[in-house]
Order: sequence, then structure tokens, then C-alpha cells
Amino acid sequence: MDRDGLLAANAAFYKALAAGDLAEMDALWSREAGVAVIHPGWPAITGRTAVMESWRGIFTGGRQDIAPISPEAYQFGDSGFVIVYEGTAGIYLVASNLFVREDGAWRMVHHQSGPIPAPEPDTPLM
Amino acid sequence: MDRDGLLAANAAFYKALAAGDLAEMDALWSREAGVAVIHPGWPAITGRTAVMESWRGIFTGGRQDIAPISPEAYQFGDSGFVIVYEGTAGIYLVASNLFVREDGAWRMVHHQSGPIPAPEPDTPLM
Repeated sequence: MDRDGLLAANAAFYKALAAGDLAEMDALWSREAGVAVIHPGWPAITGRTAVMESWRGIFTGGRQDIAPISPEAYQFGDSGFVIVYEGTAGIYLVASNLFVREDGAWRMVHHQSGPIPAPEPDTPLM
Repeated sequence: MDRDGLLAANAAFYKALAAGDLAEMDALWSREAGVAVIHPGWPAITGRTAVMESWRGIFTGGRQDIAPISPEAYQFGDSGFVIVYEGTAGIYLVASNLFVREDGAWRMVHHQSGPIPAPEPDTPLM
């Protein structure tokens, strides 16, 4: 099992997101598998070009001050996913991030993020 | 590629959901991999027992009249995912359904569903 590798890839995703670094984001996504993304409240976006265009649009809109909270990794062979909470400016989201292993590196193939109610004060998110 | 197999497993999931058939739902989920589910607006639920308890609670709450719309399958080796819209009583959701192949059958390992705005009248969802 390579949960640490999945969690590192997941952390790199949120680092690229927080930095608004499109080149880094591009490097994180698979070039061999079909990819897709579902941003909160958006319809699905499919195909690498459209997925990257969506990140470009989001980054143009300003800083994404999103902190990943309590990531949990699940691996099966050369693929796996991470469930992670996302906190940003009092808004809470929960995301599923899918990865496949390509040439020994975990690459993203899908990200879905959706809203959840804010936790009660003093209640841990998980 | 076995997109047809992934789409068939996805269709079986929505059939079990619409029927409120807990035994069928149970049969569809992996017994070997770690599993999780994110229902719309809920925190993540992890582990097979808790996932099945969540379905039991949902089925107890009444009929889930959810129609799957425009499923699209993505496969990489022995895993894959389906992106699918869910329409129910004027509410629209979009879901990611993850599957792994176990003994030749596609078994569910994760489901995340989140709300999207209703499409404009006369506009196809995708």
C-alpha cells in the first residue's frame, strides 16, 4: 500500500490550488487516462483541455484559500482516492480526489467537491 | 476497455437505489477494498458497515425516485469511475461513482453526489 504517496499527491494538489499555480496543477493531472472535474455547484467538466481551462478560470478569479482537512486515502493497485474536507472562509466542502499511478507517480484523474454544512462550533470536522 | 461493464454496474446501483433494495445494494459494494460514500450535504461516511447503515437509513426514509442521466464511464485497468447526473423531483445532482473489478465483476468503492443548479427549461442537462 502507498497511502503516503496518495496523501502526498493530494497535498500537492491543494498546494497548487492555494498558489494558483496552473503549471503545477497541469503537471499533477494524468496525461494517459480520461480525466474529469466537478467543481462545487457546477456540471461535470470532462477531458484534459476543458479541465485545465476550468482551473485557469478559477485561478483568474483570485486566490483559492482552501485548506485541506483530515485527508483519508484508499488504494487499490495502481489507483486510489482521497476523501478530504476543504475549508475556505467559513465555507465547508468535502471532496473526492482520484489518482492513478503513471510511471511510478500518482496522477489525478478526477476531483469532485461539494458543499456540506459548517460543523458546530468546537466540533471537529471528522 | 469495459465501459459497458462499468455502465451496467452503474445502472444496477441506480436500480437498487430506486427500488430501496438493501440486499441488492449490499451486493454491489466491494468486500475487499476500503469503501466510502458522500451523500449530498453530508460529511463523508467511511467503512462498509457505516456505508450500508447510511443506505438503510435512506431507504427507511422512503422511495428514492432518482433517475440516472447521461452516465459517462472512465476506466483504467481494474478500476474506473462513472460521472452521472441524478434527477429527482426537480432537484438535480451530479455524482461520481467509483468501481473496482473483483473476480471479474465491477464493485462499488465510492459514491459522491452533490447538488447542481437545475438546467434552464428546454436545455439538455449535458
